[in-house]
Amino acid sequence: MAAPWAHRYAQRTKCAKSSIIRELLKVTQRPEVISFAGGLPAPEVFPVEKFKEACNKVLTEKPQFALQYGPTEGYRPLREFIVQQMARYGILAGVDNVLITSGSQQALDLIAKLLINRGDRLLVESPTYLGALQAFDLMGAEYVTVPIDDRGLNTDYLEAALRSGPKFMYILPNFQNPGGVTLSEDRRRELVLLSDKYGIPIIEDDPYGQLRYEGEHKTPLVVLDRTNLQRDDGYTLGNVIYLSTFSKLLAPGLRVAWIVAPPDVIARLSQIKQSTDLHTSTFTQMVTYEVARDGFLDEHVKLIRSVYSERKDAMMKALTDYFPEEVTWTHPHGGLFLWVTLPTGINTRKLLDQALLNDVAFVPGDPFFPDGDKGSHMRLNFSNATPEMIREGIRRLSIAVAHELEHVGAQMEYA
Amino acid sequence: MAAPWAHRYAQRTKCAKSSIIRELLKVTQRPEVISFAGGLPAPEVFPVEKFKEACNKVLTEKPQFALQYGPTEGYRPLREFIVQQMARYGILAGVDNVLITSGSQQALDLIAKLLINRGDRLLVESPTYLGALQAFDLMGAEYVTVPIDDRGLNTDYLEAALRSGPKFMYILPNFQNPGGVTLSEDRRRELVLLSDKYGIPIIEDDPYGQLRYEGEHKTPLVVLDRTNLQRDDGYTLGNVIYLSTFSKLLAPGLRVAWIVAPPDVIARLSQIKQSTDLHTSTFTQMVTYEVARDGFLDEHVKLIRSVYSERKDAMMKALTDYFPEEVTWTHPHGGLFLWVTLPTGINTRKLLDQALLNDVAFVPGDPFFPDGDKGSHMRLNFSNATPEMIREGIRRLSIAVAHELEHVGAQMEYA
Repeated sequence: MAAPWAHRYAQRTKCAKSSIIRELLKVTQRPEVISFAGGLPAPEVFPVEKFKEACNKVLTEKPQFALQYGPTEGYRPLREFIVQQMARYGILAGVDNVLITSGSQQALDLIAKLLINRGDRLLVESPTYLGALQAFDLMGAEYVTVPIDDRGLNTDYLEAALRSGPKFMYILPNFQNPGGVTLSEDRRRELVLLSDKYGIPIIEDDPYGQLRYEGEHKTPLVVLDRTNLQRDDGYTLGNVIYLSTFSKLLAPGLRVAWIVAPPDVIARLSQIKQSTDLHTSTFTQMVTYEVARDGFLDEHVKLIRSVYSERKDAMMKALTDYFPEEVTWTHPHGGLFLWVTLPTGINTRKLLDQALLNDVAFVPGDPFFPDGDKGSHMRLNFSNATPEMIREGIRRLSIAVAHELEHVGAQMEYA
Repeated sequence: MAAPWAHRYAQRTKCAKSSIIRELLKVTQRPEVISFAGGLPAPEVFPVEKFKEACNKVLTEKPQFALQYGPTEGYRPLREFIVQQMARYGILAGVDNVLITSGSQQALDLIAKLLINRGDRLLVESPTYLGALQAFDLMGAEYVTVPIDDRGLNTDYLEAALRSGPKFMYILPNFQNPGGVTLSEDRRRELVLLSDKYGIPIIEDDPYGQLRYEGEHKTPLVVLDRTNLQRDDGYTLGNVIYLSTFSKLLAPGLRVAWIVAPPDVIARLSQIKQSTDLHTSTFTQMVTYEVARDGFLDEHVKLIRSVYSERKDAMMKALTDYFPEEVTWTHPHGGLFLWVTLPTGINTRKLLDQALLNDVAFVPGDPFFPDGDKGSHMRLNFSNATPEMIREGIRRLSIAVAHELEHVGAQMEYA
């Protein structure tokens, strides 16, 4: 007798995007596979001793607090720390503007619950972050897309897309996932002006903003919004909700991230978070605070930047050395990913099968497009493998690419 | 200029139940208040040294695993440990039947997302757990209710309620929150038979099952279901999804709980969890496993039982000593709560104001009723305060009760 559940599943569960990545992650757990598939930080730079000290300190000084239920909004000293950190980037917020979430994925889930009615249209970049599409899909979102190029979201197409009346825009301005590109300063200003003109607010997702390896820091949208609108209401932010996380700065295994929004939005998101998971682990929030405080986070981010910068360079060089000239890729100035474009006709899902035979993995491009496959792309991560492994992995991948190019070429000749 | 968000909030956010508890928790943070309001474990019995050892072990032996992203389904050794623990209660499951969640509240959120379309009717006990109503409300649930009495859900009213075609039943069989009552063995059998007859599955929420202070262990619904249906498919469970948590056994601040369900349901819930928070903190899962393993959890649960049992007795005695005879209360055999019924006409929200003036707090009964206030009730927690504080708190509360009784009496005379 079959289980009685399947015919009871809600409409919202009819999204299958996640299965690709989940299946892929299982395959890449084989130790011989060099994986460019995940968005995994380099585990060898986790500040393990600092974490040990922090756990010991928290469990010695405040164990009854650390192990108990806590407030939904988050651990207050950590929220205050975040306020200070963000002020350095011009993001003026008070503690009441900050909600701690269980990773940035939860921030997306809470925002989806707060804002999306089934059938609501959202404006997203094409391609965009797969995890955001999953969270938005679950609440029944539809999409209008704007393409990206080397300077990020192409604002030439923005106004037409805004006229279709999206509920909000979801934008990754820095080292975009999966594109690896960064929104230029002039386009940021245009984006914020158009957001104001059409009254369409922005979710600014910025997990990697501090991980810049070259070029100059760009102004966050949340800062431009405030300046642009010339508000005099102090710390209250307006038209942009800003997201960031400790996952890429310290460690993703703790699941600690944050949302910056106007206090009334934070109050509503907190109410939703209460029914979602009551609160983020008190213990991991306190440990995160103890590790990050007193300048450690800044020092540690410098280390991460130098390690990832070297890996990014190693990947760029290996791509140039091994890949055929008909393949192109983006040149990220930071973050964790770059985006490869292959000749039309190459199916990167098939390419993945071939790559896995050669013990190398990547994520095919199509799940990052809300409206399906848009050409022959793959996302490559450069933060998780060492420079030597990156070079070897790109060499293996180039063999799979050559194989597929030949195969497609042969098909064309027969056609 | 007002923030542009409020008019964009989704339909689902129009539930205000959470505000009562959230406001209350703020008031009860005043140190002079004796609070019977929360469901907080006793912090003085948290196994702090064991947690220190576990953190150190995890960060020494597997730091790069503990701080990294992990699988959505959870840390496999912890899932295996849960399988072993549950087998002792006759709950036969394999690892593929277990999903780790970020507290039981997340289990409710995932189940709500999986099963509830806006307008779906659910069968719940009246009163029932407030946090479940919050999670179900957010996905647009409607309710059909069945009252509870001293032997739990009153099955005399069950068949009529089932005929209205609920999507599923949500049941707390052991030491119900808020009622404190336990479903009798004969009613469990009747419930499972009717569930089968009408094809209406059950969510069995069992956070306190191991915290029994008197009487005999009752068979979980998930076990009766399996026996009743005489399945021969080994570890695959059927008509009941079972929830439990480490929050009340070890510490709630870690946010580690679990769901037991058929593998296809677990697969779908995992997919939803991926878009909700990717996974529960790898670190807190590994620490939970290291603390719980090798018999420690069993020993620790014995300690908790003896401490809470004493507190429960202290509250029962104080209620008998101080409360007027027109007030009645349930006699829980376990768990964290008892339920007090005051004479009709007493508004327990007003009583709460009076109680707070006397520096004592409780939760008024009405938010536990999906269909609004059903008489004059309050939920009292006995796990968090010491026996001395409990006695003093009940003394203070009795003064507020006497004041309200007099006030209502006076009103009646004038009326």
